Amino acid sequence: MSPTDHTETDTDATETRTATATDDFTVTPYAVEGEIDYEKLIDRFGADRLTDEQVARFPDHPLLRRRTFYAGRDVDSYLEAAEADAPHAIVTGRGPSGTMHLGHVLPLYLAKRLQQETGATVYIPLSDDEKFLAKAQSFAEIGHHTRENLRDILAVGFDPDRTRLIIDTVDADVIYPLAVRLATYLTPATVEAVYGEQDTVGLQFYPAVQATHLLLPQLVGGRQPTLVPIAVDQDPHVRVCRDIAAKEALPVEKPGALLGRFLPSLEGPGKMSSSADAPSIELAAAPETVAETIRTHAYTGGRATIEEHRERGGDPSVDVPFQYLRFFFEPDDAELERIAADYRSGDLLSGELKEIAIDRITTFLAAHQRRRAVLGELATEIQPYRLTDAERQQALERAGVPSVLE
Amino acid sequence: MSPTDHTETDTDATETRTATATDDFTVTPYAVEGEIDYEKLIDRFGADRLTDEQVARFPDHPLLRRRTFYAGRDVDSYLEAAEADAPHAIVTGRGPSGTMHLGHVLPLYLAKRLQQETGATVYIPLSDDEKFLAKAQSFAEIGHHTRENLRDILAVGFDPDRTRLIIDTVDADVIYPLAVRLATYLTPATVEAVYGEQDTVGLQFYPAVQATHLLLPQLVGGRQPTLVPIAVDQDPHVRVCRDIAAKEALPVEKPGALLGRFLPSLEGPGKMSSSADAPSIELAAAPETVAETIRTHAYTGGRATIEEHRERGGDPSVDVPFQYLRFFFEPDDAELERIAADYRSGDLLSGELKEIAIDRITTFLAAHQRRRAVLGELATEIQPYRLTDAERQQALERAGVPSVLE
Repeated sequence: MSPTDHTETDTDATETRTATATDDFTVTPYAVEGEIDYEKLIDRFGADRLTDEQVARFPDHPLLRRRTFYAGRDVDSYLEAAEADAPHAIVTGRGPSGTMHLGHVLPLYLAKRLQQETGATVYIPLSDDEKFLAKAQSFAEIGHHTRENLRDILAVGFDPDRTRLIIDTVDADVIYPLAVRLATYLTPATVEAVYGEQDTVGLQFYPAVQATHLLLPQLVGGRQPTLVPIAVDQDPHVRVCRDIAAKEALPVEKPGALLGRFLPSLEGPGKMSSSADAPSIELAAAPETVAETIRTHAYTGGRATIEEHRERGGDPSVDVPFQYLRFFFEPDDAELERIAADYRSGDLLSGELKEIAIDRITTFLAAHQRRRAVLGELATEIQPYRLTDAERQQALERAGVPSVLE
Repeated sequence: MSPTDHTETDTDATETRTATATDDFTVTPYAVEGEIDYEKLIDRFGADRLTDEQVARFPDHPLLRRRTFYAGRDVDSYLEAAEADAPHAIVTGRGPSGTMHLGHVLPLYLAKRLQQETGATVYIPLSDDEKFLAKAQSFAEIGHHTRENLRDILAVGFDPDRTRLIIDTVDADVIYPLAVRLATYLTPATVEAVYGEQDTVGLQFYPAVQATHLLLPQLVGGRQPTLVPIAVDQDPHVRVCRDIAAKEALPVEKPGALLGRFLPSLEGPGKMSSSADAPSIELAAAPETVAETIRTHAYTGGRATIEEHRERGGDPSVDVPFQYLRFFFEPDDAELERIAADYRSGDLLSGELKEIAIDRITTFLAAHQRRRAVLGELATEIQPYRLTDAERQQALERAGVPSVLE
């Protein structure tokens, strides 16, 4: 399940047959092409726009306040549970096929905020099985990325009492039997309609694993509203799982969704290049690397010359450094508006705006990197975040897969 | 993987599209229809007839000596390893969707003999995942059958040092990652060609699990000849796995096969009814039930009246009680020939032949039931037969799926 960073998009899989292709633009779990009309998209997907009232009921966060997450499914029931101090959960996953970038970690920080403010349980599944099947990488390589990604996820600072990290191959003892249970409701036709034709039977089966991820908080902890914050292109994944939950064969509610826009790539909002060839900011990047990357690669809304900029002003709506500030890195609305106004008026130059973004991003990364650096052995650090034996047994029992040998 | 009892055949799945259907007869993993020409079949499948020399090199056993197992693949390399005291393995599985019958256990007793005589390692996978997906039974029901089947398998008396019992859901920690690894070599087209169209993505994936079963002895114990004794209709399963092994991406040889005829149903060799409606002899059957079942239901090669039988004699080749003796229960060739001769001559009546079969079968079952009755708690009894942690790790490492967290 991708966070709101288009660089996660599997552009190497764009040949996959798509279910929602039209003349103008295409958005499926495996392909994002063309200019995206976000309003059209939620109508097409049948999701709901977030209302001002809903946004006000969420804990305050720029990703919500500024509508990077702009739509959803069953958001009200999640908010009601959060307000009533009743159990409620978030699932936000990671496909560990490479180094984590800035965009990958933003939904995790949002989830952490929601956990801090309302006590949400957070499940973070790492789909190393799917990445092995979908990418030309060995399990050893995927395992390396999984370990590095886990360190970044641990560095976010989730509450171990309310957070579970799942690794599909490591937790296969519970994930596989649950996926088999759910697979009874997943026909080949459904999977092909949503995901397109697959190269291997492993990828044909994987949607059952993904549905397992989304239902796991309820199978472990009992029926509760579950919110899945994802980039809008991942909505079909949630719908597949919602259809399974709707069968009412299991004691679960349909998981809800919080649907987000893509974080623009450094090269500009129109460019949808893959992580392989696009410059991007890794979580491990040193301050000078961040500065160099933004100075060199960030697409700006400035003018060709300083003179022209001073005279006619810049366009913050397409300026990537400004968009980074707006998405996440300048939480103060007044300060953000001041920056935008100065940019539009020509008082603030593109280079100066870049320096503001560099400052905010390096400050954020320095804190993240500090928390990451003090982590000990991964196996030890992850232990409090793993499913307990009792939780595994509970999930299997709730799904109707009682233990064979006990 | 079915043993040589046609009652295991999934006749409720005969609508499945089949790969080897012809005008005269159909044999696929999910359908056996019409009169079977066993000679044609191995030509069609491209398997090899067992030679007298090969049979002589196997430990003596009626199932081999009398050619119930009559064909195979790569039998010589297995025999060479057995003769050289080099590692060699047998895989013989069980689909735990019901009570075990006489026919299910015969290949297990053959495997036990081979283990006793040449030290073969025996792997017995129980495919509770596949049975859940393929049958209209809950995991609770499948779990019940799995436990009961395991008691019968333990009652056979395998050497725990050389035998491993695998339960797909219970051993998913190793089975699922290995199946994902092998799934990279299994296209949807291959699975559909061999197994037909499947109803769920779970069944689409299952062939990767089955291939895992067949390669597991080598992944745990290193490259070695592996023989899979199965009813001839299951040969496509082995071929799928052999094609994967032939990629040479893993340190394994192609598993060999020992292909068998179907044990005739009680109602006669021509009848291919399902286990649901055909009378059969359960392993737990009391002597009087065995006697009653055979007396009432066994198809005989006798004549309509005693007078006619005395005069013209019976036909042992279609007489089910005689076939049971020939397959397994009368190991002495001279004694078997005497019985056949007496029957042909009319000296032995059908009822008398039935009583001989009843005597042999109840003696066999009494010994089996005695060993089963003294078993303790299943979880305790099975422990010495389970994969050790070191074996699990070894298998994953050999398959290129190193531990993520250690």
